[in-house]
Amino acid sequence: MTETLPAPAGVPAEYRNIGRRVPKFDAVHKTTGHLKFVGDIQLPRMLEIKILRSPHPHARIRRIDTSKAVAIPGVKAIITHEDAPSHPYGREFALPPEYMPRDNFVIPDKARYVGDVVAAVAATTPDVAARAVAAIEVEYEKLPASLDPFAAIASGAPRIHDTVAWGEEVDHLDGNVLRTVSMGVGDVEQGFADADVVIENTFTVPKQQQSPMERRCIVVDPLPDGRLEVWCTTQSIHGLRHNLARALGIPYSRINVHQTFLGGAFGARLDMNVDEPIAALLALKSGLPVRLQLTREEDMMSTSRHPATVRLKTGAKRDGTLVAHEMEAHVDTGAYACSGEWVTKCMGGWFMSMYRVAHQRFTGHVIYTNTPPAAGFRGFGNPQANVPVESHMDLLADRLGIDPVEIRLRNYIREGDAYYAQGPNVVDYIKSCGVEQILTSGAKRIGWDRRAGFAGQGDRKIRKGIGLGRAFHTSGCGQANEVSDILEYAGSVVKINEDGTANLTTALIDMGTGNLMGHAQIVAEVLGLRAEDVLVSSTDTDSSPYDVVTHASRSTYVSGMVAKLAAEKVRDRLTELAGRILDADPGDIVLGGGRATVRGTGGAADASVSIEEIARTAQMRQWGTIMAEASERAVTTASHFTCKFVEVSVDTETGHVTVDRVVAGSDVGQVINPVLVEGQIHGGAAQAFGYALLEEIQVDRETGRTLNPDYLNYKIFTSRDACRDFDVFFADTYEDSGPFGAKGIGESANNDGASAIVNAVANAIGVHIKDLPLTPEKVLRALGKL
Amino acid sequence: MTETLPAPAGVPAEYRNIGRRVPKFDAVHKTTGHLKFVGDIQLPRMLEIKILRSPHPHARIRRIDTSKAVAIPGVKAIITHEDAPSHPYGREFALPPEYMPRDNFVIPDKARYVGDVVAAVAATTPDVAARAVAAIEVEYEKLPASLDPFAAIASGAPRIHDTVAWGEEVDHLDGNVLRTVSMGVGDVEQGFADADVVIENTFTVPKQQQSPMERRCIVVDPLPDGRLEVWCTTQSIHGLRHNLARALGIPYSRINVHQTFLGGAFGARLDMNVDEPIAALLALKSGLPVRLQLTREEDMMSTSRHPATVRLKTGAKRDGTLVAHEMEAHVDTGAYACSGEWVTKCMGGWFMSMYRVAHQRFTGHVIYTNTPPAAGFRGFGNPQANVPVESHMDLLADRLGIDPVEIRLRNYIREGDAYYAQGPNVVDYIKSCGVEQILTSGAKRIGWDRRAGFAGQGDRKIRKGIGLGRAFHTSGCGQANEVSDILEYAGSVVKINEDGTANLTTALIDMGTGNLMGHAQIVAEVLGLRAEDVLVSSTDTDSSPYDVVTHASRSTYVSGMVAKLAAEKVRDRLTELAGRILDADPGDIVLGGGRATVRGTGGAADASVSIEEIARTAQMRQWGTIMAEASERAVTTASHFTCKFVEVSVDTETGHVTVDRVVAGSDVGQVINPVLVEGQIHGGAAQAFGYALLEEIQVDRETGRTLNPDYLNYKIFTSRDACRDFDVFFADTYEDSGPFGAKGIGESANNDGASAIVNAVANAIGVHIKDLPLTPEKVLRALGKL
Repeated sequence: MTETLPAPAGVPAEYRNIGRRVPKFDAVHKTTGHLKFVGDIQLPRMLEIKILRSPHPHARIRRIDTSKAVAIPGVKAIITHEDAPSHPYGREFALPPEYMPRDNFVIPDKARYVGDVVAAVAATTPDVAARAVAAIEVEYEKLPASLDPFAAIASGAPRIHDTVAWGEEVDHLDGNVLRTVSMGVGDVEQGFADADVVIENTFTVPKQQQSPMERRCIVVDPLPDGRLEVWCTTQSIHGLRHNLARALGIPYSRINVHQTFLGGAFGARLDMNVDEPIAALLALKSGLPVRLQLTREEDMMSTSRHPATVRLKTGAKRDGTLVAHEMEAHVDTGAYACSGEWVTKCMGGWFMSMYRVAHQRFTGHVIYTNTPPAAGFRGFGNPQANVPVESHMDLLADRLGIDPVEIRLRNYIREGDAYYAQGPNVVDYIKSCGVEQILTSGAKRIGWDRRAGFAGQGDRKIRKGIGLGRAFHTSGCGQANEVSDILEYAGSVVKINEDGTANLTTALIDMGTGNLMGHAQIVAEVLGLRAEDVLVSSTDTDSSPYDVVTHASRSTYVSGMVAKLAAEKVRDRLTELAGRILDADPGDIVLGGGRATVRGTGGAADASVSIEEIARTAQMRQWGTIMAEASERAVTTASHFTCKFVEVSVDTETGHVTVDRVVAGSDVGQVINPVLVEGQIHGGAAQAFGYALLEEIQVDRETGRTLNPDYLNYKIFTSRDACRDFDVFFADTYEDSGPFGAKGIGESANNDGASAIVNAVANAIGVHIKDLPLTPEKVLRALGKL
Repeated sequence: MTETLPAPAGVPAEYRNIGRRVPKFDAVHKTTGHLKFVGDIQLPRMLEIKILRSPHPHARIRRIDTSKAVAIPGVKAIITHEDAPSHPYGREFALPPEYMPRDNFVIPDKARYVGDVVAAVAATTPDVAARAVAAIEVEYEKLPASLDPFAAIASGAPRIHDTVAWGEEVDHLDGNVLRTVSMGVGDVEQGFADADVVIENTFTVPKQQQSPMERRCIVVDPLPDGRLEVWCTTQSIHGLRHNLARALGIPYSRINVHQTFLGGAFGARLDMNVDEPIAALLALKSGLPVRLQLTREEDMMSTSRHPATVRLKTGAKRDGTLVAHEMEAHVDTGAYACSGEWVTKCMGGWFMSMYRVAHQRFTGHVIYTNTPPAAGFRGFGNPQANVPVESHMDLLADRLGIDPVEIRLRNYIREGDAYYAQGPNVVDYIKSCGVEQILTSGAKRIGWDRRAGFAGQGDRKIRKGIGLGRAFHTSGCGQANEVSDILEYAGSVVKINEDGTANLTTALIDMGTGNLMGHAQIVAEVLGLRAEDVLVSSTDTDSSPYDVVTHASRSTYVSGMVAKLAAEKVRDRLTELAGRILDADPGDIVLGGGRATVRGTGGAADASVSIEEIARTAQMRQWGTIMAEASERAVTTASHFTCKFVEVSVDTETGHVTVDRVVAGSDVGQVINPVLVEGQIHGGAAQAFGYALLEEIQVDRETGRTLNPDYLNYKIFTSRDACRDFDVFFADTYEDSGPFGAKGIGESANNDGASAIVNAVANAIGVHIKDLPLTPEKVLRALGKL
């Protein structure tokens, strides 16, 4: 149960960084309003962009007339599909171009959902741009639309895409299935035949919005030599540079993307969206800096979690041993590919990696519909699989009369077991596992033995329930094979300043999680400095080594590992120089407490030199800047495990569910900074509870219009809904493959929460609701009151 | 006579970079007005600073009352000596703190020249700040002033500084001599005794202004965590960071200085001035961003070349062989140390390194006066020594009846000879020398044989003259000993982009000379790329390795060498990866024409891979970013040599001198980019001609007021004065210690010009004027017409 680690003997406490509760270095900049987000950037003569969007879910652009719009004073540039590059581009940052699905056009000649881009205007003010948008005349040829994944795969359904390019190859599609993902082990039919009990259910999980506070914003400054300076709400500056260059058909180095902090992202900025190439093209066309800041409505319609319908069949022996597991998912990717295949692959991987089951099969259909496109979202297919699986564990436990904690303890995968890291191609093995710890300790903390008593509370108005959700996730996308369909490498530069402090440069994006603060702690730990003495520099794609993207719970595990490697190179240089100064063998020198000290000398004055003194001597004697770069790929992932025990109250009159208590147990290996990990766990839980109870982007099945793209009508789980009785604890594990024993957390914090709520409500009301979110209406219906 | 080199066989011409006439990459940004200088920076709520300056040349501040000023709406912060740190600080960037003279205070309690800082105000607008400055009430105790160096060293002269700190040691001064620099070889008295002829003269050289177009400007943004973001017209971002931190008494890493292009500098931005700490202190006090942009008058009074009175005594044999040389200089450093000692040391070094003389002595007195402070200026003591020495060479030639070219050819130092690189401590040896080439070829090009005919032109109104000046300079401040009183190291980072282009990051400042373009060519040459494929990234002190400062004709020789080292590390990585791709030994692979090719295969398709393909494969296979850093000190300097032959017309009625023709011969080793070197030679000549003919900051010897701190009254040598008949040529030398054979040029371009003019005017009018500048008044006086 790791908390802040004590400092080792002889080292002042503030020099012990791993496990220390250090506030984020950017917190003061954010709270004072000093930190500049993309939306704060003002450039002289900057134009504002507005977009003309399709009112139809499926329509070909017959004719488009911008002549009236162009004539409006202040309008500087307009683009339509006629001005835009005609090649399709791909959005995903983590896939090499060779494997990336490409079905987007900078401006398409056919609208595929209500809101798809038809034209874009850059003008001196947003109002002028909006007036110009209104003045564009479009003649649409309305086409029949597929607004539902099952309608979309029915025979004769209107075709949304004829082709999709995958790298340089082109797929000609038969219908609206982008890809079907299949994976499995054993013989599922035989497994079910061998089972003593088989249950099968169909679950639906909703189209949740990522809901970052910051709206998508892009600023592009065109330089006179044709290069573009770009600031963008993006999870990857290098990924954006590459995809934007390919969308525009220009060399990568013509674009320089600047690193900024994000006001949240949760996957909504995981890939390039359609707005970045539009802004860049308008900058090139107008020759002036431009800004495109989406409205809240536009932003909410631009990304979402992939909604899915999931059929799950589970077979078990009487003692609870799982023997067969089969999942079939219909995943709605919306009008464009948008990570749909990769999310579905991962969904299969997460499904197959939760429990030891000899016979498993996963089939995932990735389906185009004429609805707003989905995107990556914290968990990346995991909650979609977790809710059915964890529901089934409870249902099976009930059926077999086994305690739900116990049935999980019998079946969970553990040290040495194989798992699927990111879909069918990537197998890895569990190296550290604290599942037993977190399950048993969590059960005690929540008072699990009260659960049985909650079954059958009769007609009480408020019914209590306790539920458990458990999740498996991986840290990053590493794999043993260097030729991978997912990129997973990072780079860092560490430099010692002449005052003995250090600078760290990494292209990694901090979405608000504090991952860069964690990096500073890792570097400080290697160098024997205080975390506050490691300054994280701002950078851009011109200056920084490649870092793939902030995603997949990889920041600490992958990028942090590479920052550690760079710091170790600097450490070696420091000990070498300390050896020169102290006339000692560098191999005998250790760093700690801000000093380099010859081992075994007890810190005698002539056997110890401060880092500052080394740096100043290096300057004085012109030994050069103490600086190193590391750039490495991850060859492993690290599976991390979480569970959430929740206690809820269900108001049987209103159908409203209140979360009363949360116990969150996490095996994240060594905790680098408890403040930050706790932040992830609190935030992840809120997002999961919203998924379970409230949140769903609703698309009208007749018109294709999004009904609630705003926070008046789309209800998120807010601080008013959040539960203050929230107990966070950690397993006492250490992951050898991670930096200082650390694993990931960002997504796991989210994966298990919805399952816990669904199971707790079932405990309270005796009905297992399978259609998320569990709105009051659905709860009342389950109670037979509607 | 190197011009553009032909491309080697088999490599497309654009891939051969060294010697190629490539336009500066920043030219288009400057000419389109897109490039941002410091003065273009606008920050929200930024305050403007105005400074209250002393009207007295020497006065103690008895009392200062800011109460009325503070009460003016819009005034946000005022500082006086009462608010400022009480420790003295040093200005120089290239000296380690341990050796730096420290006699400046952020705001002194005693004004030492008319214009010295008394208080500073930050307010919402410049007008408000100016009104507040006017409202500050000061009671001065006027002190007697020393307005002339000889007055200042007379007994009983008023004392300007009581103490000067040198690093941590404090000198208690007896009078107004900061330091006396002495150096010598042999036995000068014996040398003069052995001489057949001895001449002795006293020369005065003026207080020239550097005259960059851009005025000094500092923007400081205080961050909520106490750090300062700084943009400044400075020749060294790292030097400024260090000196500013020390002036404020805060750790270096609390300051981040951003790299910008300069609109000229010429040494005026070589050191920190007094304005940077004032701006930083006002930013810290107000908590708001501030800007301090000097007025033209303030800027012109803030720096100048050190004026000097130089007595020179030269002894020679009848055949012209020099046997004894003695120089004594009284150098006026103004009210503060301001590089005065180092300039004087260098002056001695340049003096002693021009000609082979067995017995030499240099004595330089660095004297404080109550006049505006001097500063580093292109040549750094060289023109002050060059004018007397080159005048004497002509005078001696005349006396002995030897041709001036011939007497120089007999005596110049050459390959293998020792020289003093930067004052008495640094001896180096000449490795390449093209003096004979440039002197003999230059004489032919100018038509030297006409010179004799110009002697005695009788009473013609316009008299023609030809003159020669020759100069010696060093490239950078390197030395064999790592413990040096001058820092001379640099760092560079080179990175390959995934499209096969490269990025170069260096903290080096481009003052407008194109030194960064030269770096791009060097990196391109190493990597076999085109210069336009090497992008120079903008950086800051947080992110970049240390680079000491743009000075001392070091950019190409020192920083360029380090950029080459970084590029070579990247080259080695590229050949390693190409070896993997081509299944070949990396040692057999050569880069060129944008490709890596196995030697001896004639570029067969399976034996060659483009850099872009290597980079893309490295991404696809996750081999990491191809990137390397180098940081090294220079252990040698490289002496470079120039000469200028000029032909002038002297109007004997007006005294006006016109430059009719220039022949500039330079031994700069291998020319990296002729366009850039020619630019240096043209600009350096104009600055030298202004020094010889026009330019002098005049300080009233009664009041201490500067009489002409503006371009109406201070006449610089403009494009109207410049000579279009300008013949530039280069010696065919190659310096083994330099990158691709290159040496420096920046200062040499300036050092020889004034001497050439003085000698040409003497040829024309038969009188050798020894008091620069040769204004019409002095010419007429020499002609006996005044």
